[in-house]
Amino acid sequence: MSKKQINVGLIGYQFMGKAHSNAYRQVGRFFDLPVDVHMHTICGRNEAAVKKAAESYGWTNYETDWRKVIANPEIDVIDVSTPGNLHAEIAIAAAKAGKAVFCEKPIGNTLEEAKSMLDAVQAAGVPHAVFHNYRKAPAVALAKKLIMDGRLGTIYHMRATYLQDWIADPNFPLVWRLQKEVAGSGTHGDINAHIIDLGRHLVGEFDEVVGTLHTFIKKRPLAGEIDANLGAKASEKMGDVTVDDAAMFLAKFKNGALGTFEASRFAVGRKNYNRFEINGSGGSLVFNLERMNELEFFDNSVPEETHGFTLIQATEGSHPYAGHYWPVAHIIGYGETFTNLLADAFTNMAAGTRIEPDFVDGYENQRVLDAVERSSETRSWIKL
Amino acid sequence: MSKKQINVGLIGYQFMGKAHSNAYRQVGRFFDLPVDVHMHTICGRNEAAVKKAAESYGWTNYETDWRKVIANPEIDVIDVSTPGNLHAEIAIAAAKAGKAVFCEKPIGNTLEEAKSMLDAVQAAGVPHAVFHNYRKAPAVALAKKLIMDGRLGTIYHMRATYLQDWIADPNFPLVWRLQKEVAGSGTHGDINAHIIDLGRHLVGEFDEVVGTLHTFIKKRPLAGEIDANLGAKASEKMGDVTVDDAAMFLAKFKNGALGTFEASRFAVGRKNYNRFEINGSGGSLVFNLERMNELEFFDNSVPEETHGFTLIQATEGSHPYAGHYWPVAHIIGYGETFTNLLADAFTNMAAGTRIEPDFVDGYENQRVLDAVERSSETRSWIKL
Amino acid sequence: MSKKQINVGLIGYQFMGKAHSNAYRQVGRFFDLPVDVHMHTICGRNEAAVKKAAESYGWTNYETDWRKVIANPEIDVIDVSTPGNLHAEIAIAAAKAGKAVFCEKPIGNTLEEAKSMLDAVQAAGVPHAVFHNYRKAPAVALAKKLIMDGRLGTIYHMRATYLQDWIADPNFPLVWRLQKEVAGSGTHGDINAHIIDLGRHLVGEFDEVVGTLHTFIKKRPLAGEIDANLGAKASEKMGDVTVDDAAMFLAKFKNGALGTFEASRFAVGRKNYNRFEINGSGGSLVFNLERMNELEFFDNSVPEETHGFTLIQATEGSHPYAGHYWPVAHIIGYGETFTNLLADAFTNMAAGTRIEPDFVDGYENQRVLDAVERSSETRSWIKL
Amino acid sequence: MSKKQINVGLIGYQFMGKAHSNAYRQVGRFFDLPVDVHMHTICGRNEAAVKKAAESYGWTNYETDWRKVIANPEIDVIDVSTPGNLHAEIAIAAAKAGKAVFCEKPIGNTLEEAKSMLDAVQAAGVPHAVFHNYRKAPAVALAKKLIMDGRLGTIYHMRATYLQDWIADPNFPLVWRLQKEVAGSGTHGDINAHIIDLGRHLVGEFDEVVGTLHTFIKKRPLAGEIDANLGAKASEKMGDVTVDDAAMFLAKFKNGALGTFEASRFAVGRKNYNRFEINGSGGSLVFNLERMNELEFFDNSVPEETHGFTLIQATEGSHPYAGHYWPVAHIIGYGETFTNLLADAFTNMAAGTRIEPDFVDGYENQRVLDAVERSSETRSWIKL
Repeated sequence: MSKKQINVGLIGYQFMGKAHSNAYRQVGRFFDLPVDVHMHTICGRNEAAVKKAAESYGWTNYETDWRKVIANPEIDVIDVSTPGNLHAEIAIAAAKAGKAVFCEKPIGNTLEEAKSMLDAVQAAGVPHAVFHNYRKAPAVALAKKLIMDGRLGTIYHMRATYLQDWIADPNFPLVWRLQKEVAGSGTHGDINAHIIDLGRHLVGEFDEVVGTLHTFIKKRPLAGEIDANLGAKASEKMGDVTVDDAAMFLAKFKNGALGTFEASRFAVGRKNYNRFEINGSGGSLVFNLERMNELEFFDNSVPEETHGFTLIQATEGSHPYAGHYWPVAHIIGYGETFTNLLADAFTNMAAGTRIEPDFVDGYENQRVLDAVERSSETRSWIKL
Repeated sequence: MSKKQINVGLIGYQFMGKAHSNAYRQVGRFFDLPVDVHMHTICGRNEAAVKKAAESYGWTNYETDWRKVIANPEIDVIDVSTPGNLHAEIAIAAAKAGKAVFCEKPIGNTLEEAKSMLDAVQAAGVPHAVFHNYRKAPAVALAKKLIMDGRLGTIYHMRATYLQDWIADPNFPLVWRLQKEVAGSGTHGDINAHIIDLGRHLVGEFDEVVGTLHTFIKKRPLAGEIDANLGAKASEKMGDVTVDDAAMFLAKFKNGALGTFEASRFAVGRKNYNRFEINGSGGSLVFNLERMNELEFFDNSVPEETHGFTLIQATEGSHPYAGHYWPVAHIIGYGETFTNLLADAFTNMAAGTRIEPDFVDGYENQRVLDAVERSSETRSWIKL
Repeated sequence: MSKKQINVGLIGYQFMGKAHSNAYRQVGRFFDLPVDVHMHTICGRNEAAVKKAAESYGWTNYETDWRKVIANPEIDVIDVSTPGNLHAEIAIAAAKAGKAVFCEKPIGNTLEEAKSMLDAVQAAGVPHAVFHNYRKAPAVALAKKLIMDGRLGTIYHMRATYLQDWIADPNFPLVWRLQKEVAGSGTHGDINAHIIDLGRHLVGEFDEVVGTLHTFIKKRPLAGEIDANLGAKASEKMGDVTVDDAAMFLAKFKNGALGTFEASRFAVGRKNYNRFEINGSGGSLVFNLERMNELEFFDNSVPEETHGFTLIQATEGSHPYAGHYWPVAHIIGYGETFTNLLADAFTNMAAGTRIEPDFVDGYENQRVLDAVERSSETRSWIKL
Repeated sequence: MSKKQINVGLIGYQFMGKAHSNAYRQVGRFFDLPVDVHMHTICGRNEAAVKKAAESYGWTNYETDWRKVIANPEIDVIDVSTPGNLHAEIAIAAAKAGKAVFCEKPIGNTLEEAKSMLDAVQAAGVPHAVFHNYRKAPAVALAKKLIMDGRLGTIYHMRATYLQDWIADPNFPLVWRLQKEVAGSGTHGDINAHIIDLGRHLVGEFDEVVGTLHTFIKKRPLAGEIDANLGAKASEKMGDVTVDDAAMFLAKFKNGALGTFEASRFAVGRKNYNRFEINGSGGSLVFNLERMNELEFFDNSVPEETHGFTLIQATEGSHPYAGHYWPVAHIIGYGETFTNLLADAFTNMAAGTRIEPDFVDGYENQRVLDAVERSSETRSWIKL
């Protein structure tokens, strides 16, 4: 093939590393890309673990020092999938080295970090992307299309929740995601960030917010050894939980819409309940990540006799992304949201056009996160 | 008021007696009827029980001999809500006495009884109705309207189940509904009769059937004393179950549609799962009695991008019957299906027009029941 | 019968008048009450309309001056179902006259009114009730029982929405419910009041709130003539909408639980979507009024292999209220929530015990409504 | 790595070819297999198309003559994914050449073909597998486990439907799947075969059946050119549809359970509605392929107060297959059902143990298909 080869270096090999690896491996199989994506190098500090990850996930090389990956002139794209406390340093170094930078969300652990990262990629003029992968579920992309086509008219409301329960047990140990110095925040940056992105993407920019971050369980057993998938061994010693267990806020969008947003890891029974509902004068939409191939649409132009919420299976060949996979109603999974994101990213990159979502989105997202955190302290509305 | 008063005599006071009483009491409160319905007399063999029922349900008089009710010249309508083995005798006597006859389904315990009952009401020229009340759920009436409006086009399929589990416990006693000489049949006449009626009502007449009736538990404890709501005391002695626990059949309709029908009292977890789906060239419909205010409609004329099953809340003021009750999505219940049936029946009766469903429907229904029973014996398709 | 007769006088004959009338008519038919409930007098200002209502709904007498109803020594209970601006005057007069007072919610148009009403019934020592009827849906009553039995453990979250769309059309006229001087507030008092009551009932007392009331459409055509069911004729002249179209707030409960509450009349496609979810350490509950016979329960004690949200049909004979009606999964409707409330109210009244919910609940509810309104002005959290 | 390399030759490159290719590519990435799976050669008659498929799907070589693939001594496994009329010849030749044979379902176009194929693999002593991939959805595998653990007790009922609508349009052309000489049968072999397999897998062997195959649209436009995904260009000439559009049958299982089975391509609105419900004395199960990560379970041992159907998200780490992918409720898709099947197949093959499902399953499946076809002709029950 005469396609240009793009060499990727992935920093991080845990949950996101596995998901991103799968997407790099699959993207060229389902999409006719303008480039050949090559899984060049995966990087992690634990050599045995990263070697195994390289073999399992299909990376040609592995490395234990991210600086060497960035220094490697063969590599075109640096994918930053480490815990949040390393994002800024790696991403900025990668940008300065002239690499495209694809980064997990939230891009920084603070608004300042995010700003410096955005400045870095803009100064360097390199392509940049952020993994707000849920935009790329076919049902969400269809929601976006229906909104852009005017099918929802004037938007009045968005209500979004991202509910999980994996730390509801007070004996769940103090893993890195519960430590502010590593993770930046708890539910807020981890999952509120996702629904804030969906709000910006589908409704528009935020105007002001009021909210609160809350920690139900303030001390937990220290984690023994962190495994590859969020799990951990418990220990007898206790440590302080320094991030939020739940974060909720009200919002007003610049276009006049109202919003409610709530993230929790204490919603017992809810596993990955990233659900939103948007109501407009022309109709309404409902999405739930746990049934990510489906979109509910109330079309207000349908006569009363037969109106109602329609369960669209966003799996038709004509739906966004879906035609690249299987026949209608043969569903795709979580992994494909990353594949779709990369398909878009490499296509834009090859064309020299803006990748969406990018560090601008990452930064704007973080401005909302930051405003909610400040509101939680001032106990009042904060203007963005 | 100058409206004509219609005096009703109700024979039977158990489950159906309670449901019918409620409907007679309520019908004039929600519908502006051309007549005044008066709850004249309720009749049952156990004087203490029927006296209590009269007081509880609001009947002016009670009686222990149904012949006296029929002989009473004040009474205009005889409602036959006894177990099936008494239907024919009472209904025929009532018809001969010139009374309107409203009868529970199936009208007879055999096809011969049903025929003699139909002959009797036709010979007497009296109004007649059969309580296939599910036709009168707003969602079912809406289904009928959509079909009559051509929204389903050519109908290809109906699949109907009526699933319950109240006798799945082998220790459930041998109540009258499990005895052929009283009940006529088991699930077949009790609940298959309902979905056969919906088939005739919504799709059309049956052409041929093949099916089987089956009894899983062939001996049960004798019932001690039957209470008002199907319950019973268990006994140590065992008796033979002489009716079917489940009955299923395939059908071809005269218009070319195919059907599957299944009734069971052994579908553990299913309580009142009277569900049908109808597929036509123009669209499809789904109904489930347990969510009887809802109808799902797939409109095949909607473009692929947003097509899907629409959950219609059949509670709009413009939907059949619904406008007589509450604002949209303030649901009605099972009791109201009888109220709606009576509203229609009294309106037709006053106008001298045919009540639907009537004994013709009861008889045609029984022809299908009978054909399935014969098919169960001959093990082959039976033409109707 | 030797039961004591209780004579009821109902002030108001529109939507709530119809619903309450049905409940007074039905309560003695499904429940074995210690008293005989007599529908003595209905009262409204429009004589022709109230006369028709008396006939339709089954009241023995009608009256056009509520003072005469209160003055009538035969009457034991005054039911206040007028628009909110008349509640306080009528209820206080009724209490002073020694009548039991059953009042629609919110009891007053202001917190001051509510306080004066509570003071009046307490000073008079008369029984009092408020129509927070949704407590009395079997599924909600089951939710309460499960919580009281400790099945939810420590409660972490409640999220409640009450969404409708009946005024989303900007041409919908300026009916009384959109006028502050009559209705007191918009969605806030009308439907947020309901979910606040469910919050107090199921989770506990509120500790602090932050929220906002919002009006999307600020001018509407003047209403011509108001009909019995919220409808209205449009007019060419425009008037100011003086109530909220939507109201949302965050809450902290005294027991440490977090809450989100949202009411809207602009949630296009949502008709009567009174939905709540409660998450506790032991499990979670979900209820939606549009499927009011169902309760979803996640039982955290079930092993992971088969855990999940269980769809309970709250229609078993052993479930609260349900056994008084039909066999399992033969559902009841909206009307029955009032019947159940009255069954409890008359039972408590006869026993001389506290009715729940009563004016204390009405007042506490209004304290929360008031705090949210103040928060909407101060743009900060308000302590209760 | 010291793992043995297994070289696969895939015959066929359309829909199933794409799905199988994905599974061969992915299986070693998510499962720690005892062998290294190498995608050696893909084969199809159209050189340009198969060359493109090889590149897209990741096969090292391509070939246009399947005999050459079988003759290649490097190749260990022959995967037969052609239209049904070529299955027997290829599979038998592969077996004779000592290759493992993995075949699409139904294995033959006739019972005789299936028997000769089974004989061939057994005579050759080679490993064999059939792609009844739906057994391998985590939710179905969980259903199997619950049944084997005795959670359903005595099974009374299975009702299964596999409903699609892709040829409901009478102008849909006469593609190969509508031609008996190529496809063998229509819905019957294509999709009834799947639910028959689920019946055998979950309930047990069939004892007798009665059913009918039906063709609604008997003439269709000739297909111009068949594309890779079931699509086709229409032509002006008409041809005879020689297969069934719908096939339905009743069944009795050897263990006494009753079954209803229905397949249709005329169920408008149903896209991939492979749904089953199984009722046993101990509980019930419901599965729908369109929500293939979910299983509904009614546990009859739960007290009445909180019993109901529980929506299990079969995505826990402890659920079959699920732990190999993502965290809980991060769903997998249709493609993964094949990946799971191959993971089992290669594991069994390496261990020298029976692969499930294999050609015995394929043959037994075909015995049921054949019995239903004969029943459709004799119009009576057929004993297996």
